[in-house]
Amino acid sequence: MAIKMACSSTLANSTVAISQPRSGALNSCASSSFRGGVQFECNARVVAVQRRGKFSHVCAQAADGGRGGSFSDLAVMVNDCSGKMGGSVAEAAIGAGLQLVPVCLTGPGMGRSFSIQGVNVEAVDSRHREGVIDHVLKEYPYVVVVDYTLPAAVNGNAEFYCSRGLPFVMGTTGGDSEKLIEDVLQSGVYSVVAPQMGKQVVAFQAAMSIMAEQFPGAFSGYKLQVIESHQSTKVDTSGTAKAIISSFQKLGLDFDMEEIEMVRDSKRQIEEMKVPEEHLNGHAFHTYRVVSPDGMVNFEFQHNVCGRSIYAEGAVDAVLFLAKKIRERTDKKLYNMIDVLREGNMR
Amino acid sequence: MAIKMACSSTLANSTVAISQPRSGALNSCASSSFRGGVQFECNARVVAVQRRGKFSHVCAQAADGGRGGSFSDLAVMVNDCSGKMGGSVAEAAIGAGLQLVPVCLTGPGMGRSFSIQGVNVEAVDSRHREGVIDHVLKEYPYVVVVDYTLPAAVNGNAEFYCSRGLPFVMGTTGGDSEKLIEDVLQSGVYSVVAPQMGKQVVAFQAAMSIMAEQFPGAFSGYKLQVIESHQSTKVDTSGTAKAIISSFQKLGLDFDMEEIEMVRDSKRQIEEMKVPEEHLNGHAFHTYRVVSPDGMVNFEFQHNVCGRSIYAEGAVDAVLFLAKKIRERTDKKLYNMIDVLREGNMR
Repeated sequence: MAIKMACSSTLANSTVAISQPRSGALNSCASSSFRGGVQFECNARVVAVQRRGKFSHVCAQAADGGRGGSFSDLAVMVNDCSGKMGGSVAEAAIGAGLQLVPVCLTGPGMGRSFSIQGVNVEAVDSRHREGVIDHVLKEYPYVVVVDYTLPAAVNGNAEFYCSRGLPFVMGTTGGDSEKLIEDVLQSGVYSVVAPQMGKQVVAFQAAMSIMAEQFPGAFSGYKLQVIESHQSTKVDTSGTAKAIISSFQKLGLDFDMEEIEMVRDSKRQIEEMKVPEEHLNGHAFHTYRVVSPDGMVNFEFQHNVCGRSIYAEGAVDAVLFLAKKIRERTDKKLYNMIDVLREGNMR
Repeated sequence: MAIKMACSSTLANSTVAISQPRSGALNSCASSSFRGGVQFECNARVVAVQRRGKFSHVCAQAADGGRGGSFSDLAVMVNDCSGKMGGSVAEAAIGAGLQLVPVCLTGPGMGRSFSIQGVNVEAVDSRHREGVIDHVLKEYPYVVVVDYTLPAAVNGNAEFYCSRGLPFVMGTTGGDSEKLIEDVLQSGVYSVVAPQMGKQVVAFQAAMSIMAEQFPGAFSGYKLQVIESHQSTKVDTSGTAKAIISSFQKLGLDFDMEEIEMVRDSKRQIEEMKVPEEHLNGHAFHTYRVVSPDGMVNFEFQHNVCGRSIYAEGAVDAVLFLAKKIRERTDKKLYNMIDVLREGNMR
């Protein structure tokens, strides 16, 4: 089958050092650290771990003999790392010392080869996905998928990952989120689903939500002003801003979502919002100003993101988190970024 | 006795409308609102409520017949409202529609008469405090004391309030805080003890603390910069900044308290920190900047306070909170500003 051959060819040409599968015990890799760069040490019992539905559990046991600790066998497949966001995740994964699967799925007719930080990657037309995953599972039984594709692909991809027992991190937004959750829960596959992968932004958002829950009305009488700046192609208002404003509303601030000031003009972005010129086409700047009735007390909260690294790093954290949960064989299978944050620093 | 006469004279000359004690039922004032301005409607059974240790409970029942709702009989005695901070609390209390007791305790030899928003107040030498309180309890049985005096007076004042069964809000910092807590707990008197009365600042501080507890290491690898500006007479670094930095440390930020940048130079305060010139002598500005390792993500948190209104308003909130707890006859007697915040908006 053509696709199988293409995959094999890709893997053979990859600069990733892939040793031959050992026939030894699964816990032979327990002592190696995942920080040791791109590596692949033990993928024994490849066939055994491909049983549908059992994959995650076997993975858990296999990853380090069930004793906890390293992630040396963990591999990350990023769909679609030929895209900008997926490419950033792949870079972050390599930067974190994780093993990047040198093949990914891409849109119909978009197949191509490219290199990410010295790793040659083959993006394969998603119509051949079954064959690709057969191959990936054989070579990388302890794989976690990260999905940064397109809104229209979210549900179809999730269904596919579930059908193949592939644990995954869904970073793509859009689609039918209720169906997504339902599919994941029914499949019993481990996953992190998060519309916002920027871990630190999620932490701030959660802190504001907790403050609002615990101290309702603490800012009663205060006035709120919200300004957000994004690349000019972003037409709608920031979803993160809306979530944080809903917390401010619980804190007693009278604010209508329509009062959010959207800045899409590059001159204002540079001069007023202090967006670096090179990031005009990819940034998310938010400023919240809270002023007391007498004007004597001012709070200001800003979260200003340039580029994609925060989301890419967050996705890698989600992968590490998922690998840990798989290994711990937790009953809970579906997680979000708050769960990832609660786990603490995993690097 | 001289002091008794002085007090009577003060009260008689006060512009506060004080009706004569009624002999009717204690719940006769249940339906009136505390928002109705300075008033004094029912202070029956004055003698009965003066029994030591029982005062608070009797108060609780009396305040509105034990049915919850208004604070029409609540009176606030501010020691020392001839001082700047105490004066601000007295103003805020009047502004909130509470009844200001037109007498307060002041330092030895500092007795004088003055006016606060049309209320003539007599500050009486604290050596005569027993007589003053005899009189206050007689006229205002449902009184809550706010203490904004001097660090050296904290423990002595608290002991005195406890000995007289006077519920109190301790806004003065300093003294032996362990002894203070012990005295309060032993006495069974209701009190709010808080080194920081700025409710909104406490809310932010608590939110950061909760974020750190729940998401340890969420900002690992990030860099922190802290700048604080206060009036030039403040020699030590901000205690609030230190508390918030300890949360940042738990979030994974490597920061030494000595790295806090203290701004006490008026030129820098005006130009860089944007402190209004008229508040150079009384402000508390704090900026925390958190930057990702690659410099692509910036968070900024500011809490900038001019003047005393935030602390005064917080003290009034603490009074309302205490009045509510007294009425509810809660077992817990000692509270802080987090408890006040948890109660939600009470106005």
